[in-house]
Amino acid sequence: MDLSLIEALGKVNLVIMEEKIRTLSMIFANHFTAQLDTVKLRTGRTTERMKIDHPEAAAVIPFLDEERILMVRQWRYAIGQDTLEIPAGKADPGEDLEICARRELLEETGYEPARVIHLFSYFPAIGYSNEVIRIYAASGLKRLSDAQDMDEIASVETLSLHEAHDLMLEGRIRDGKTVIGLAWFQLLKDRGKIPSDFFS
Amino acid sequence: MDLSLIEALGKVNLVIMEEKIRTLSMIFANHFTAQLDTVKLRTGRTTERMKIDHPEAAAVIPFLDEERILMVRQWRYAIGQDTLEIPAGKADPGEDLEICARRELLEETGYEPARVIHLFSYFPAIGYSNEVIRIYAASGLKRLSDAQDMDEIASVETLSLHEAHDLMLEGRIRDGKTVIGLAWFQLLKDRGKIPSDFFS
Repeated sequence: MDLSLIEALGKVNLVIMEEKIRTLSMIFANHFTAQLDTVKLRTGRTTERMKIDHPEAAAVIPFLDEERILMVRQWRYAIGQDTLEIPAGKADPGEDLEICARRELLEETGYEPARVIHLFSYFPAIGYSNEVIRIYAASGLKRLSDAQDMDEIASVETLSLHEAHDLMLEGRIRDGKTVIGLAWFQLLKDRGKIPSDFFS
Repeated sequence: MDLSLIEALGKVNLVIMEEKIRTLSMIFANHFTAQLDTVKLRTGRTTERMKIDHPEAAAVIPFLDEERILMVRQWRYAIGQDTLEIPAGKADPGEDLEICARRELLEETGYEPARVIHLFSYFPAIGYSNEVIRIYAASGLKRLSDAQDMDEIASVETLSLHEAHDLMLEGRIRDGKTVIGLAWFQLLKDRGKIPSDFFS
């Protein structure tokens, strides 16, 4: 074995820190799975890890103008509360994430955007899920229909960015993707990094 | 039945939007469960919902001084990568969340803080998990030990806030709690809302 290969294997070993031993149990939901694995830790000890295998998702901050955004109110079964969030949803198999953002925006609010920019992508629950959420901002909104996703969305609400920030500060908006989206947009805006033609 | 009770029941009905019909399957992990339920939607249709029942968690941005923070590198089984994150972990049953933040900081970095302030609490994965993460900032760090949680933590790294922001902008820090923590701290700092004695 030549030295470069040994070196490469060494690097691989440094990186692979937790190895699966076996899957103990598994749940198949409609669009994703949850499984509990036994794994070997970097120290040699064994433990159990939960892993949700989740499709990528898109979320979008819809700007009616420079100051006002749309949000959707929906029931969240996992927390047993209704929440105010930016529109979002799972990508269909093979679907481009920007297309997914546009589709979810239309389904949940009835609006179609002229411009969509990517803000940030992140892992929401890195401890037990491989989900990635790509967050977009949309502007140039045109109302195509009244129709909303009645199964999921209780109401579509218009808020100023100022009101949304106040609700976050008061702890009344606590949805991760909504908070990251609004906080990140503000940071980019404060630093002059939102394209000048985004609101034109 | 008096009118105020009817009114109250009306409000309850408006709020309860998804009712559990039955649990189809369930996984018991060490510290939390995953279950798949059949639920009745607000429109009367039925669907399936995954629900992770997860303990509350604490995360903490440890400040060595006004400019430098500690982060930990660890393998994340769910995404098959190592990541750079702020220290964090699940609360033990009955454990106060600020105590949890202090414990995780000590276990993962060997440092004990003089001051801890609460920044923000949020739901990381509202679509399928009831987990709440409380994010703190810590200062006045005193090194108590070299010992780290060797099972979980590969290394403890010192970064400037500027470097951490660059890594986020480059998409090399993509862990949700870390991004929310750093972005939120920056927003509070920009608005003069970090206590003046936090770094003293």
